[in-house]
Amino acid sequence: MPRDLTTASDFQELVDRYDTWLFDCDGVIWEGDHVIGKAGDTLQYLRKLGKRVFFVTNNATKSRGNNKGKFDKMGIDCTEEEIFTSAFASAAYLKNVLKFPEDKKVYVIGEKGIEDELDAVGIKRSGGTSPEDNVFVDLMDFSSITSDPEVGAVLCGLDMHMNYKKYARAFKYLRENEGCLFMATNLDSTFPTHGTVHPGGGATVAPLSCALGREPLVVGKPEAPMLESIVQTYNLDKSRMIMVGDRLNTDIAFGNKGGVDTLMVLTGIDQREGYEKEDAVAEPTYVVNALGDLAVLAK
Amino acid sequence: MPRDLTTASDFQELVDRYDTWLFDCDGVIWEGDHVIGKAGDTLQYLRKLGKRVFFVTNNATKSRGNNKGKFDKMGIDCTEEEIFTSAFASAAYLKNVLKFPEDKKVYVIGEKGIEDELDAVGIKRSGGTSPEDNVFVDLMDFSSITSDPEVGAVLCGLDMHMNYKKYARAFKYLRENEGCLFMATNLDSTFPTHGTVHPGGGATVAPLSCALGREPLVVGKPEAPMLESIVQTYNLDKSRMIMVGDRLNTDIAFGNKGGVDTLMVLTGIDQREGYEKEDAVAEPTYVVNALGDLAVLAK
Repeated sequence: MPRDLTTASDFQELVDRYDTWLFDCDGVIWEGDHVIGKAGDTLQYLRKLGKRVFFVTNNATKSRGNNKGKFDKMGIDCTEEEIFTSAFASAAYLKNVLKFPEDKKVYVIGEKGIEDELDAVGIKRSGGTSPEDNVFVDLMDFSSITSDPEVGAVLCGLDMHMNYKKYARAFKYLRENEGCLFMATNLDSTFPTHGTVHPGGGATVAPLSCALGREPLVVGKPEAPMLESIVQTYNLDKSRMIMVGDRLNTDIAFGNKGGVDTLMVLTGIDQREGYEKEDAVAEPTYVVNALGDLAVLAK
Repeated sequence: MPRDLTTASDFQELVDRYDTWLFDCDGVIWEGDHVIGKAGDTLQYLRKLGKRVFFVTNNATKSRGNNKGKFDKMGIDCTEEEIFTSAFASAAYLKNVLKFPEDKKVYVIGEKGIEDELDAVGIKRSGGTSPEDNVFVDLMDFSSITSDPEVGAVLCGLDMHMNYKKYARAFKYLRENEGCLFMATNLDSTFPTHGTVHPGGGATVAPLSCALGREPLVVGKPEAPMLESIVQTYNLDKSRMIMVGDRLNTDIAFGNKGGVDTLMVLTGIDQREGYEKEDAVAEPTYVVNALGDLAVLAK
Protein backbone atom coordinates (compact mmCIF):
# COMPACT_ATOMS: atom_id res chain seq x y z
CA MET A 1 0.00 0.00 0.00
CA PRO A 2 1.15 3.59 -0.57
CA ARG A 3 2.69 5.45 2.32
CA ASP A 4 0.73 8.43 3.59
CA LEU A 5 2.87 11.50 4.15
CA THR A 6 1.43 13.87 6.75
CA THR A 7 4.17 15.27 8.99
CA ALA A 8 7.08 17.62 8.37
CA SER A 9 9.53 14.78 8.99
CA ASP A 10 7.71 12.64 6.36
CA PHE A 11 8.10 15.49 3.90
CA GLN A 12 11.74 16.01 4.80
CA GLU A 13 12.54 12.36 4.20
CA LEU A 14 10.82 12.55 0.80
CA VAL A 15 12.66 15.66 -0.26
CA ASP A 16 16.02 14.18 0.79
CA ARG A 17 15.32 10.94 -1.08
CA TYR A 18 14.80 12.38 -4.62
CA ASP A 19 16.92 14.67 -6.80
CA THR A 20 14.69 14.89 -9.89
CA TRP A 21 11.03 15.80 -9.63
CA LEU A 22 8.57 15.32 -12.50
CA PHE A 23 5.26 17.13 -12.23
CA ASP A 24 1.90 16.81 -13.90
CA CYS A 25 0.36 20.31 -13.90
CA ASP A 26 -3.46 20.15 -14.08
CA GLY A 27 -4.82 19.10 -10.68
CA VAL A 28 -1.36 19.23 -9.11
CA ILE A 29 0.04 22.73 -9.59
CA TRP A 30 -3.01 24.50 -10.95
CA GLU A 31 -6.64 24.02 -11.70
CA GLY A 32 -7.95 26.09 -14.59
CA ASP A 33 -6.62 29.57 -13.98
CA HIS A 34 -5.47 29.39 -10.37
CA VAL A 35 -2.55 27.83 -8.53
CA ILE A 36 -3.64 25.13 -6.04
CA GLY A 37 -2.82 26.22 -2.47
CA LYS A 38 0.89 26.58 -1.82
CA ALA A 39 2.02 24.43 -4.76
CA GLY A 40 4.09 27.36 -6.03
CA ASP A 41 5.91 27.66 -2.71
CA THR A 42 6.79 23.96 -2.73
CA LEU A 43 8.24 24.30 -6.22
CA GLN A 44 10.32 27.30 -5.14
CA TYR A 45 11.59 25.38 -2.11
CA LEU A 46 12.65 22.41 -4.26
CA ARG A 47 14.51 24.75 -6.57
CA LYS A 48 16.26 26.38 -3.61
CA LEU A 49 17.51 22.93 -2.60
CA GLY A 50 18.96 22.49 -6.10
CA LYS A 51 16.50 19.79 -7.19
CA ARG A 52 15.89 19.26 -10.89
CA VAL A 53 12.32 19.96 -11.84
CA PHE A 54 10.41 18.89 -14.99
CA PHE A 55 6.83 19.49 -16.03
CA VAL A 56 5.34 16.60 -17.98
CA THR A 57 2.27 17.16 -20.16
CA ASN A 58 0.61 15.11 -22.88
CA ASN A 59 -0.44 18.30 -24.69
CA ALA A 60 1.27 18.17 -28.07
CA THR A 61 -0.43 21.08 -29.83
CA LYS A 62 1.88 23.76 -28.43
CA SER A 63 5.62 24.12 -28.44
CA ARG A 64 7.46 24.37 -25.16
CA GLY A 65 7.72 28.12 -25.69
CA ASN A 66 3.95 28.45 -25.93
CA ASN A 67 3.47 26.25 -22.89
CA LYS A 68 5.83 28.46 -20.90
CA GLY A 69 3.36 31.31 -21.37
CA LYS A 70 0.91 29.54 -19.06
CA PHE A 71 3.56 29.15 -16.36
CA ASP A 72 4.45 32.84 -16.66
CA LYS A 73 0.78 33.83 -16.30
CA MET A 74 0.42 31.66 -13.20
CA GLY A 75 3.58 33.10 -11.65
CA ILE A 76 5.32 29.70 -11.64
CA ASP A 77 9.04 29.86 -12.50
CA CYS A 78 10.20 27.57 -15.26
CA THR A 79 12.47 27.39 -18.27
CA GLU A 80 11.50 25.92 -21.64
CA GLU A 81 13.93 23.05 -21.05
CA GLU A 82 11.97 22.00 -17.99
CA ILE A 83 8.75 21.51 -19.95
CA PHE A 84 8.35 18.03 -21.37
CA THR A 85 5.38 17.88 -23.76
CA SER A 86 4.54 14.66 -25.56
CA ALA A 87 5.48 16.50 -28.78
CA PHE A 88 8.99 17.30 -27.53
CA ALA A 89 9.31 13.83 -26.02
CA SER A 90 8.34 12.30 -29.39
CA ALA A 91 10.97 14.32 -31.21
CA ALA A 92 13.60 13.56 -28.56
CA TYR A 93 12.66 9.87 -28.56
CA LEU A 94 12.99 9.66 -32.34
CA LYS A 95 16.33 11.47 -32.26
CA ASN A 96 18.04 10.16 -29.13
CA VAL A 97 16.50 6.78 -28.46
CA LEU A 98 15.50 5.49 -31.91
CA LYS A 99 18.33 7.29 -33.79
CA PHE A 100 15.92 8.21 -36.59
CA PRO A 101 17.86 8.18 -39.92
CA GLU A 102 18.87 11.60 -41.24
CA ASP A 103 17.75 10.81 -44.78
CA LYS A 104 14.21 9.94 -43.67
CA LYS A 105 11.32 12.21 -42.74
CA VAL A 106 8.36 12.08 -40.39
CA TYR A 107 4.81 12.48 -41.70
CA VAL A 108 2.88 14.52 -39.13
CA ILE A 109 -0.80 14.31 -38.27
CA GLY A 110 -0.92 17.07 -35.71
CA GLU A 111 -0.47 20.77 -35.00
CA LYS A 112 2.46 23.16 -34.98
CA GLY A 113 3.64 21.97 -31.56
CA ILE A 114 4.86 18.72 -33.09
CA GLU A 115 6.43 20.44 -36.11
CA ASP A 116 8.36 22.91 -33.94
CA GLU A 117 9.84 20.14 -31.85
CA LEU A 118 10.87 18.04 -34.87
CA ASP A 119 12.49 21.14 -36.36
CA ALA A 120 14.32 21.80 -33.09
CA VAL A 121 16.03 18.41 -33.20
CA GLY A 122 16.65 18.60 -36.96
CA ILE A 123 14.28 15.87 -38.14
CA LYS A 124 12.73 16.41 -41.61
CA ARG A 125 8.95 16.37 -41.81
CA SER A 126 5.90 16.62 -44.08
CA GLY A 127 2.13 16.77 -43.54
CA GLY A 128 1.07 18.62 -40.37
CA THR A 129 0.13 22.23 -41.11
CA SER A 130 1.28 22.06 -44.76
CA PRO A 131 -1.43 23.71 -46.91
CA GLU A 132 -1.63 20.84 -49.38
CA ASP A 133 -2.41 18.44 -46.52
CA ASN A 134 -5.09 20.67 -45.04
CA VAL A 135 -7.80 20.36 -47.64
CA PHE A 136 -10.84 18.17 -48.09
CA VAL A 137 -10.42 15.57 -50.82
CA ASP A 138 -13.18 15.10 -53.31
CA LEU A 139 -15.16 11.95 -52.82
CA MET A 140 -13.17 9.00 -54.16
CA ASP A 141 -10.48 11.18 -55.78
CA PHE A 142 -7.28 9.52 -54.69
CA SER A 143 -4.96 11.15 -57.21
CA SER A 144 -3.11 13.09 -54.49
CA ILE A 145 -2.54 9.99 -52.35
CA THR A 146 0.86 9.16 -53.79
CA SER A 147 3.85 7.21 -52.50
CA ASP A 148 6.73 8.79 -50.60
CA PRO A 149 9.48 6.31 -49.78
CA GLU A 150 11.31 8.96 -47.71
CA VAL A 151 8.68 8.77 -44.95
CA GLY A 152 10.18 6.64 -42.18
CA ALA A 153 7.61 7.39 -39.47
CA VAL A 154 4.07 8.69 -39.04
CA LEU A 155 3.63 10.71 -35.85
CA CYS A 156 0.06 11.53 -34.73
CA GLY A 157 -1.15 13.90 -32.06
CA LEU A 158 -4.23 16.00 -31.39
CA ASP A 159 -5.03 17.62 -34.73
CA MET A 160 -7.84 20.15 -35.10
CA HIS A 161 -7.13 19.93 -38.83
CA MET A 162 -7.53 16.18 -39.04
CA ASN A 163 -8.82 15.16 -42.46
CA TYR A 164 -9.20 12.20 -44.78
CA LYS A 165 -6.28 13.15 -47.01
CA LYS A 166 -3.84 13.04 -44.09
CA TYR A 167 -5.11 9.64 -42.98
CA ALA A 168 -5.08 8.20 -46.52
CA ARG A 169 -1.52 9.43 -47.04
CA ALA A 170 -0.31 8.17 -43.66
CA PHE A 171 -2.04 4.83 -44.27
CA LYS A 172 -0.29 4.48 -47.62
CA TYR A 173 3.16 5.21 -46.17
CA LEU A 174 2.63 2.78 -43.30
CA ARG A 175 1.57 0.01 -45.67
CA GLU A 176 4.15 0.63 -48.38
CA ASN A 177 7.31 1.78 -46.65
CA GLU A 178 9.21 -1.02 -44.99
CA GLY A 179 9.86 -0.40 -41.31
CA CYS A 180 7.78 2.80 -41.28
CA LEU A 181 7.04 3.57 -37.61
CA PHE A 182 3.51 4.27 -36.38
CA MET A 183 3.78 6.63 -33.39
CA ALA A 184 1.35 8.69 -31.31
CA THR A 185 2.17 11.51 -28.93
CA ASN A 186 -0.57 10.25 -26.58
CA LEU A 187 -3.89 8.36 -26.59
CA ASP A 188 -5.93 10.65 -24.30
CA SER A 189 -9.54 10.05 -25.30
CA THR A 190 -10.58 13.58 -24.38
CA PHE A 191 -9.01 16.82 -23.31
CA PRO A 192 -10.55 19.14 -20.77
CA THR A 193 -10.91 22.86 -21.49
CA HIS A 194 -13.25 25.66 -20.44
CA GLY A 195 -15.05 23.37 -17.97
CA THR A 196 -15.96 20.74 -20.55
CA VAL A 197 -14.23 18.05 -22.60
CA HIS A 198 -13.66 17.60 -26.34
CA PRO A 199 -12.20 14.72 -28.36
CA GLY A 200 -8.54 14.26 -27.41
CA GLY A 201 -5.32 13.11 -29.05
CA GLY A 202 -6.43 9.48 -29.01
CA ALA A 203 -9.45 10.39 -31.13
CA THR A 204 -7.27 11.82 -33.89
CA VAL A 205 -5.03 8.72 -33.91
CA ALA A 206 -7.99 6.30 -33.97
CA PRO A 207 -8.77 6.39 -37.73
CA LEU A 208 -5.29 5.17 -38.54
CA SER A 209 -5.29 2.46 -35.83
CA CYS A 210 -8.63 1.27 -37.19
CA ALA A 211 -7.53 1.21 -40.83
CA LEU A 212 -4.24 -0.52 -40.00
CA GLY A 213 -5.69 -2.90 -37.45
CA ARG A 214 -2.88 -2.17 -35.01
CA GLU A 215 -1.95 0.28 -32.27
CA PRO A 216 0.82 2.89 -32.43
CA LEU A 217 3.90 3.19 -30.30
CA VAL A 218 2.66 5.71 -27.71
CA VAL A 219 5.17 8.23 -26.39
CA GLY A 220 3.18 10.18 -23.77
CA LYS A 221 1.85 9.30 -20.34
CA PRO A 222 1.25 6.59 -19.20
CA GLU A 223 3.60 4.86 -21.65
CA ALA A 224 7.33 4.45 -21.05
CA PRO A 225 8.92 6.33 -24.02
CA MET A 226 8.36 9.83 -22.58
CA LEU A 227 10.16 8.85 -19.38
CA GLU A 228 12.98 7.14 -21.30
CA SER A 229 13.27 10.24 -23.40
CA ILE A 230 13.63 12.52 -20.33
CA VAL A 231 16.14 10.15 -18.72
CA GLN A 232 18.29 9.84 -21.86
CA THR A 233 18.09 13.50 -22.88
CA TYR A 234 19.34 14.72 -19.49
CA ASN A 235 21.25 11.60 -18.40
CA LEU A 236 19.29 11.24 -15.16
CA ASP A 237 19.30 8.57 -12.42
CA LYS A 238 15.86 6.92 -12.25
CA SER A 239 16.43 5.71 -8.68
CA ARG A 240 16.57 9.34 -7.52
CA MET A 241 13.52 10.46 -9.55
CA ILE A 242 9.90 10.88 -8.50
CA MET A 243 6.76 11.53 -10.55
CA VAL A 244 4.08 13.71 -8.94
CA GLY A 245 0.50 13.54 -10.25
CA ASP A 246 -3.22 13.38 -9.55
CA ARG A 247 -4.36 10.71 -12.04
CA LEU A 248 -3.76 7.01 -11.54
CA ASN A 249 -4.24 5.94 -15.17
CA THR A 250 -1.85 8.54 -16.58
CA ASP A 251 0.58 10.03 -14.01
CA ILE A 252 0.94 7.21 -11.50
CA ALA A 253 0.82 4.48 -14.17
CA PHE A 254 3.51 6.48 -15.99
CA GLY A 255 5.82 6.20 -12.98
CA ASN A 256 4.91 2.53 -12.39
CA LYS A 257 5.58 1.53 -16.01
CA GLY A 258 8.78 3.53 -16.17
CA GLY A 259 10.19 2.15 -12.89
CA VAL A 260 10.12 5.47 -11.07
CA ASP A 261 8.62 6.19 -7.63
CA THR A 262 5.44 8.24 -7.50
CA LEU A 263 3.75 10.79 -5.28
CA MET A 264 0.00 11.12 -5.63
CA VAL A 265 -1.77 14.34 -4.66
CA LEU A 266 -5.49 14.43 -3.87
CA THR A 267 -6.18 17.87 -5.35
CA GLY A 268 -7.17 16.62 -8.81
CA ILE A 269 -9.13 13.80 -10.47
CA ASP A 270 -8.46 10.65 -8.42
CA GLN A 271 -8.93 10.01 -4.73
CA ARG A 272 -7.97 7.23 -2.28
CA GLU A 273 -10.68 4.84 -3.52
CA GLY A 274 -8.89 4.78 -6.85
CA TYR A 275 -5.80 2.90 -5.65
CA GLU A 276 -7.48 1.09 -2.75
CA LYS A 277 -9.73 -1.01 -4.99
CA GLU A 278 -8.58 -4.46 -6.07
CA ASP A 279 -8.30 -3.77 -9.80
CA ALA A 280 -6.54 -0.39 -9.41
CA VAL A 281 -4.78 0.63 -12.64
CA ALA A 282 -1.76 1.87 -10.70
CA GLU A 283 -0.47 2.36 -7.16
CA PRO A 284 1.49 5.36 -5.94
CA THR A 285 4.55 5.02 -3.71
CA TYR A 286 3.44 7.95 -1.54
CA VAL A 287 0.30 10.01 -1.04
CA VAL A 288 0.01 13.58 0.17
CA ASN A 289 -3.11 15.71 0.39
CA ALA A 290 -1.67 18.55 -1.64
CA LEU A 291 1.66 19.47 -3.18
CA GLY A 292 1.51 22.69 -1.16
CA ASP A 293 1.70 20.68 2.08
CA LEU A 294 5.45 20.30 1.54
CA ALA A 295 5.80 24.08 1.70
CA VAL A 296 5.82 23.76 5.49
CA LEU A 297 9.51 22.84 5.10
CA ALA A 298 10.26 26.22 3.57
CA LYS A 299 9.59 28.07 6.78
CA MET B 1 -20.11 -28.52 -41.86
CA PRO B 2 -21.38 -26.65 -44.92
CA ARG B 3 -22.93 -28.66 -47.71
CA ASP B 4 -21.07 -28.59 -51.01
CA LEU B 5 -23.34 -28.02 -53.99
CA THR B 6 -21.95 -29.45 -57.22
CA THR B 7 -24.70 -31.08 -59.29
CA ALA B 8 -27.71 -29.71 -61.12
CA SER B 9 -30.01 -31.47 -58.68
CA ASP B 10 -28.19 -29.80 -55.75
CA PHE B 11 -28.73 -26.44 -57.39
CA GLN B 12 -32.40 -27.22 -58.14
CA GLU B 13 -33.04 -28.11 -54.50
CA LEU B 14 -31.40 -24.84 -53.41
CA VAL B 15 -33.41 -22.73 -55.81
CA ASP B 16 -36.67 -24.39 -54.74
CA ARG B 17 -35.88 -23.89 -51.06
CA TYR B 18 -35.50 -20.03 -51.00
CA ASP B 19 -37.78 -17.21 -52.19
CA THR B 20 -35.63 -14.21 -51.28
CA TRP B 21 -31.99 -13.96 -52.33
CA LEU B 22 -29.59 -11.40 -50.84
CA PHE B 23 -26.35 -10.82 -52.72
CA ASP B 24 -23.04 -9.26 -51.89
CA CYS B 25 -21.66 -7.85 -55.16
CA ASP B 26 -17.84 -7.61 -55.07
CA GLY B 27 -16.34 -11.07 -55.46
CA VAL B 28 -19.77 -12.62 -56.08
CA ILE B 29 -21.33 -10.88 -59.08
CA TRP B 30 -18.43 -8.81 -60.28
CA GLU B 31 -14.78 -8.17 -59.66
CA GLY B 32 -13.63 -4.67 -60.48
CA ASP B 33 -15.10 -3.91 -63.88
CA HIS B 34 -16.15 -7.35 -65.08
CA VAL B 35 -18.95 -9.77 -64.27
CA ILE B 36 -17.69 -13.07 -62.79
CA GLY B 37 -18.47 -15.98 -65.15
CA LYS B 38 -22.17 -16.61 -65.62
CA ALA B 39 -23.29 -14.76 -62.47
CA GLY B 40 -25.49 -12.53 -64.60
CA ASP B 41 -27.26 -15.57 -66.11
CA THR B 42 -27.96 -16.99 -62.65
CA LEU B 43 -29.52 -13.69 -61.57
CA GLN B 44 -31.71 -13.63 -64.70
CA TYR B 45 -32.80 -17.21 -64.06
CA LEU B 46 -33.79 -16.43 -60.45
CA ARG B 47 -35.81 -13.45 -61.65
CA LYS B 48 -37.55 -15.62 -64.25
CA LEU B 49 -38.62 -17.94 -61.42
CA GLY B 50 -40.13 -14.93 -59.61
CA LYS B 51 -37.58 -14.87 -56.78
CA ARG B 52 -37.04 -11.64 -54.88
CA VAL B 53 -33.51 -10.35 -55.26
CA PHE B 54 -31.64 -7.79 -53.12
CA PHE B 55 -28.12 -6.45 -53.36
CA VAL B 56 -26.56 -5.72 -50.00
CA THR B 57 -23.58 -3.35 -49.74
CA ASN B 58 -21.91 -1.56 -46.85
CA ASN B 59 -21.05 1.39 -49.11
CA ALA B 60 -22.85 4.38 -47.59
CA THR B 61 -21.34 7.19 -49.63
CA LYS B 62 -23.71 6.86 -52.58
CA SER B 63 -27.47 6.85 -52.81
CA ARG B 64 -29.24 3.82 -54.28
CA GLY B 65 -29.66 5.75 -57.53
CA ASN B 66 -25.92 6.27 -57.83
CA ASN B 67 -25.26 2.64 -57.00
CA LYS B 68 -27.64 1.56 -59.76
CA GLY B 69 -25.32 3.19 -62.27
CA LYS B 70 -22.73 0.48 -61.63
CA PHE B 71 -25.31 -2.27 -62.26
CA ASP B 72 -26.36 -0.60 -65.49
CA LYS B 73 -22.74 -0.40 -66.66
CA MET B 74 -22.21 -4.09 -65.89
CA GLY B 75 -25.38 -5.08 -67.69
CA ILE B 76 -26.97 -6.49 -64.54
CA ASP B 77 -30.70 -5.79 -64.22
CA CYS B 78 -31.84 -4.18 -61.00
CA THR B 79 -34.17 -1.56 -59.58
CA GLU B 80 -33.23 1.03 -56.96
CA GLU B 81 -35.49 -0.74 -54.46
CA GLU B 82 -33.41 -3.89 -54.75
CA ILE B 83 -30.22 -2.13 -53.64
CA PHE B 84 -29.72 -2.17 -49.90
CA THR B 85 -26.82 0.11 -48.91
CA SER B 86 -25.89 0.54 -45.26
CA ALA B 87 -27.00 4.18 -45.67
CA PHE B 88 -30.49 3.18 -46.79
CA ALA B 89 -30.62 0.42 -44.17
CA SER B 90 -29.68 2.96 -41.48
CA ALA B 91 -32.46 5.32 -42.53
CA ALA B 92 -34.96 2.46 -42.79
CA TYR B 93 -33.85 1.06 -39.44
CA LEU B 94 -34.28 4.44 -37.75
CA LYS B 95 -37.69 4.92 -39.34
CA ASN B 96 -39.24 1.44 -39.29
CA VAL B 97 -37.54 -0.41 -36.48
CA LEU B 98 -36.58 2.29 -33.98
CA LYS B 99 -39.56 4.59 -34.82
CA PHE B 100 -37.26 7.64 -34.63
CA PRO B 101 -39.30 10.59 -33.25
CA GLU B 102 -40.50 13.11 -35.84
CA ASP B 103 -39.46 16.11 -33.76
CA LYS B 104 -35.85 14.91 -33.52
CA LYS B 105 -33.06 15.07 -36.05
CA VAL B 106 -30.03 13.00 -36.95
CA TYR B 107 -26.53 14.53 -36.91
CA VAL B 108 -24.63 13.06 -39.86
CA ILE B 109 -20.92 12.36 -40.12
CA GLY B 110 -20.86 11.10 -43.68
CA GLU B 111 -21.45 11.85 -47.33
CA LYS B 112 -24.49 12.63 -49.45
CA GLY B 113 -25.51 8.97 -49.66
CA ILE B 114 -26.62 9.05 -46.03
CA GLU B 115 -28.36 12.41 -46.37
CA ASP B 116 -30.34 11.30 -49.44
CA GLU B 117 -31.63 8.22 -47.67
CA LEU B 118 -32.64 10.13 -44.53
CA ASP B 119 -34.45 12.64 -46.73
CA ALA B 120 -36.20 9.80 -48.57
CA VAL B 121 -37.76 8.50 -45.35
CA GLY B 122 -38.51 12.01 -44.03
CA ILE B 123 -36.05 12.13 -41.14
CA LYS B 124 -34.63 15.59 -40.33
CA ARG B 125 -30.87 15.96 -40.32
CA SER B 126 -27.90 18.28 -39.76
CA GLY B 127 -24.11 18.02 -40.22
CA GLY B 128 -23.06 15.90 -43.21
CA THR B 129 -22.32 18.03 -46.26
CA SER B 130 -23.58 21.26 -44.63
CA PRO B 131 -21.01 24.01 -45.39
CA GLU B 132 -20.76 25.17 -41.77
CA ASP B 133 -19.78 21.64 -40.73
CA ASN B 134 -17.16 21.29 -43.43
CA VAL B 135 -14.52 23.70 -42.21
CA PHE B 136 -11.40 23.41 -40.13
CA VAL B 137 -11.76 24.88 -36.66
CA ASP B 138 -9.07 27.14 -35.35
CA LEU B 139 -6.92 25.55 -32.72
CA MET B 140 -8.81 25.52 -29.42
CA ASP B 141 -11.65 27.72 -30.68
CA PHE B 142 -14.74 25.92 -29.49
CA SER B 143 -17.23 28.76 -29.92
CA SER B 144 -19.08 26.93 -32.69
CA ILE B 145 -19.44 23.71 -30.69
CA THR B 146 -22.84 24.56 -29.24
CA SER B 147 -25.68 22.46 -27.86
CA ASP B 148 -28.57 21.18 -29.97
CA PRO B 149 -31.18 19.33 -27.92
CA GLU B 150 -33.04 18.36 -31.10
CA VAL B 151 -30.33 15.90 -32.10
CA GLY B 152 -31.63 12.43 -31.19
CA ALA B 153 -29.02 10.36 -33.02
CA VAL B 154 -25.54 10.63 -34.50
CA LEU B 155 -25.10 8.51 -37.62
CA CYS B 156 -21.54 7.99 -38.93
CA GLY B 157 -20.36 6.50 -42.19
CA LEU B 158 -17.38 6.86 -44.47
CA ASP B 159 -16.76 10.61 -44.68
CA MET B 160 -14.08 12.07 -46.96
CA HIS B 161 -14.89 15.38 -45.27
CA MET B 162 -14.32 14.13 -41.75
CA ASN B 163 -13.10 16.96 -39.52
CA TYR B 164 -12.65 17.95 -35.90
CA LYS B 165 -15.68 20.22 -35.80
CA LYS B 166 -18.01 17.38 -36.75
CA TYR B 167 -16.54 15.09 -34.11
CA ALA B 168 -16.61 17.78 -31.41
CA ARG B 169 -20.26 18.56 -32.22
CA ALA B 170 -21.30 14.90 -32.34
CA PHE B 171 -19.43 14.25 -29.10
CA LYS B 172 -21.26 17.12 -27.40
CA TYR B 173 -24.70 15.88 -28.53
CA LEU B 174 -23.95 12.33 -27.44
CA ARG B 175 -22.83 13.48 -24.00
CA GLU B 176 -25.52 16.08 -23.42
CA ASN B 177 -28.67 14.78 -25.07
CA GLU B 178 -30.38 12.06 -23.06
CA GLY B 179 -30.92 8.89 -25.07
CA CYS B 180 -29.03 10.22 -28.08
CA LEU B 181 -28.20 7.19 -30.26
CA PHE B 182 -24.67 6.50 -31.50
CA MET B 183 -24.98 4.66 -34.83
CA ALA B 184 -22.58 3.66 -37.61
CA THR B 185 -23.47 2.53 -41.12
CA ASN B 186 -20.59 0.02 -40.96
CA LEU B 187 -17.20 -0.55 -39.34
CA ASP B 188 -15.20 -1.66 -42.39
CA SER B 189 -11.60 -0.79 -41.55
CA THR B 190 -10.69 -0.22 -45.20
CA PHE B 191 -12.36 -0.01 -48.55
CA PRO B 192 -10.85 -1.38 -51.74
CA THR B 193 -10.71 0.76 -54.87
CA HIS B 194 -8.48 1.00 -57.93
CA GLY B 195 -6.51 -2.07 -56.87
CA THR B 196 -5.53 -0.68 -53.46
CA VAL B 197 -7.20 0.08 -50.13
CA HIS B 198 -7.87 3.31 -48.24
CA PRO B 199 -9.25 3.99 -44.74
CA GLY B 200 -12.86 2.76 -44.57
CA GLY B 201 -16.08 3.65 -42.77
CA GLY B 202 -14.79 2.25 -39.48
CA ALA B 203 -11.88 4.70 -39.59
CA THR B 204 -14.22 7.70 -39.74
CA VAL B 205 -16.30 6.39 -36.82
CA ALA B 206 -13.24 5.64 -34.68
CA PRO B 207 -12.57 9.18 -33.32
CA LEU B 208 -16.02 9.26 -31.76
CA SER B 209 -15.81 5.72 -30.32
CA CYS B 210 -12.44 6.67 -28.81
CA ALA B 211 -13.66 9.95 -27.28
CA LEU B 212 -16.84 8.35 -25.91
CA GLY B 213 -15.18 5.14 -24.77
CA ARG B 214 -17.95 3.04 -26.31
CA GLU B 215 -18.91 1.43 -29.59
CA PRO B 216 -21.80 2.46 -31.86
CA LEU B 217 -24.83 0.46 -32.88
CA VAL B 218 -23.64 -0.86 -36.25
CA VAL B 219 -26.22 -1.23 -39.00
CA GLY B 220 -24.25 -2.78 -41.88
CA LYS B 221 -22.78 -6.22 -42.46
CA PRO B 222 -22.04 -8.31 -40.43
CA GLU B 223 -24.37 -6.82 -37.81
CA ALA B 224 -28.07 -7.70 -37.55
CA PRO B 225 -29.81 -4.30 -38.06
CA MET B 226 -29.38 -4.23 -41.87
CA LEU B 227 -31.06 -7.64 -42.15
CA GLU B 228 -33.84 -6.67 -39.74
CA SER B 229 -34.33 -3.53 -41.75
CA ILE B 230 -34.72 -5.48 -45.03
CA VAL B 231 -37.08 -8.00 -43.42
CA GLN B 232 -39.29 -5.32 -41.84
CA THR B 233 -39.27 -2.94 -44.80
CA TYR B 234 -40.50 -5.64 -47.22
CA ASN B 235 -42.23 -7.93 -44.71
CA LEU B 236 -40.18 -10.97 -45.69
CA ASP B 237 -40.00 -14.53 -44.32
CA LYS B 238 -36.49 -15.20 -42.99
CA SER B 239 -36.93 -18.95 -43.24
CA ARG B 240 -37.19 -18.61 -47.03
CA MET B 241 -34.24 -16.20 -47.37
CA ILE B 242 -30.62 -16.86 -48.28
CA MET B 243 -27.57 -14.59 -48.17
CA VAL B 244 -24.93 -15.12 -50.88
CA GLY B 245 -21.41 -13.85 -50.34
CA ASP B 246 -17.67 -14.41 -50.59
CA ARG B 247 -16.47 -13.12 -47.21
CA LEU B 248 -16.88 -15.02 -43.97
CA ASN B 249 -16.44 -12.07 -41.59
CA THR B 250 -18.98 -9.87 -43.35
CA ASP B 251 -21.41 -11.74 -45.65
CA ILE B 252 -21.58 -15.16 -44.02
CA ALA B 253 -21.40 -13.75 -40.47
CA PHE B 254 -24.22 -11.40 -41.51
CA GLY B 255 -26.45 -14.38 -42.33
CA ASN B 256 -25.37 -16.30 -39.24
CA LYS B 257 -26.07 -13.37 -36.87
CA GLY B 258 -29.36 -12.60 -38.54
CA GLY B 259 -30.61 -16.19 -38.50
CA VAL B 260 -30.65 -16.58 -42.27
CA ASP B 261 -29.12 -19.42 -44.33
CA THR B 262 -26.03 -18.62 -46.38
CA LEU B 263 -24.41 -19.63 -49.63
CA MET B 264 -20.68 -19.03 -49.92
CA VAL B 265 -19.05 -18.61 -53.32
CA LEU B 266 -15.32 -19.15 -53.85
CA THR B 267 -14.81 -16.42 -56.44
CA GLY B 268 -13.85 -13.68 -53.98
CA ILE B 269 -11.80 -13.17 -50.81
CA ASP B 270 -12.29 -16.31 -48.67
CA GLN B 271 -11.71 -19.95 -49.54
CA ARG B 272 -12.49 -23.31 -47.90
CA GLU B 273 -9.69 -23.00 -45.31
CA GLY B 274 -11.56 -20.02 -43.89
CA TYR B 275 -14.51 -21.96 -42.53
CA GLU B 276 -12.70 -25.28 -42.06
CA LYS B 277 -10.41 -23.95 -39.32
CA GLU B 278 -11.42 -24.33 -35.70
CA ASP B 279 -11.82 -20.63 -34.86
CA ALA B 280 -13.72 -19.74 -38.04
CA VAL B 281 -15.61 -16.44 -37.66
CA ALA B 282 -18.64 -17.86 -39.47
CA GLU B 283 -19.86 -20.98 -41.26
CA PRO B 284 -21.91 -21.03 -44.44
CA THR B 285 -24.92 -23.34 -44.93
CA TYR B 286 -23.89 -24.16 -48.49
CA VAL B 287 -20.82 -23.69 -50.66
CA VAL B 288 -20.67 -23.42 -54.44
CA ASN B 289 -17.66 -22.69 -56.60
CA ALA B 290 -19.25 -19.76 -58.37
CA LEU B 291 -22.66 -18.12 -58.52
CA GLY B 292 -22.61 -18.74 -62.28
CA ASP B 293 -22.64 -22.52 -61.68
CA LEU B 294 -26.38 -22.30 -60.99
CA ALA B 295 -26.90 -21.01 -64.53
CA VAL B 296 -26.81 -24.62 -65.70
CA LEU B 297 -30.47 -24.79 -64.59
CA ALA B 298 -31.42 -22.10 -67.07
CA LYS B 299 -30.70 -24.33 -70.05
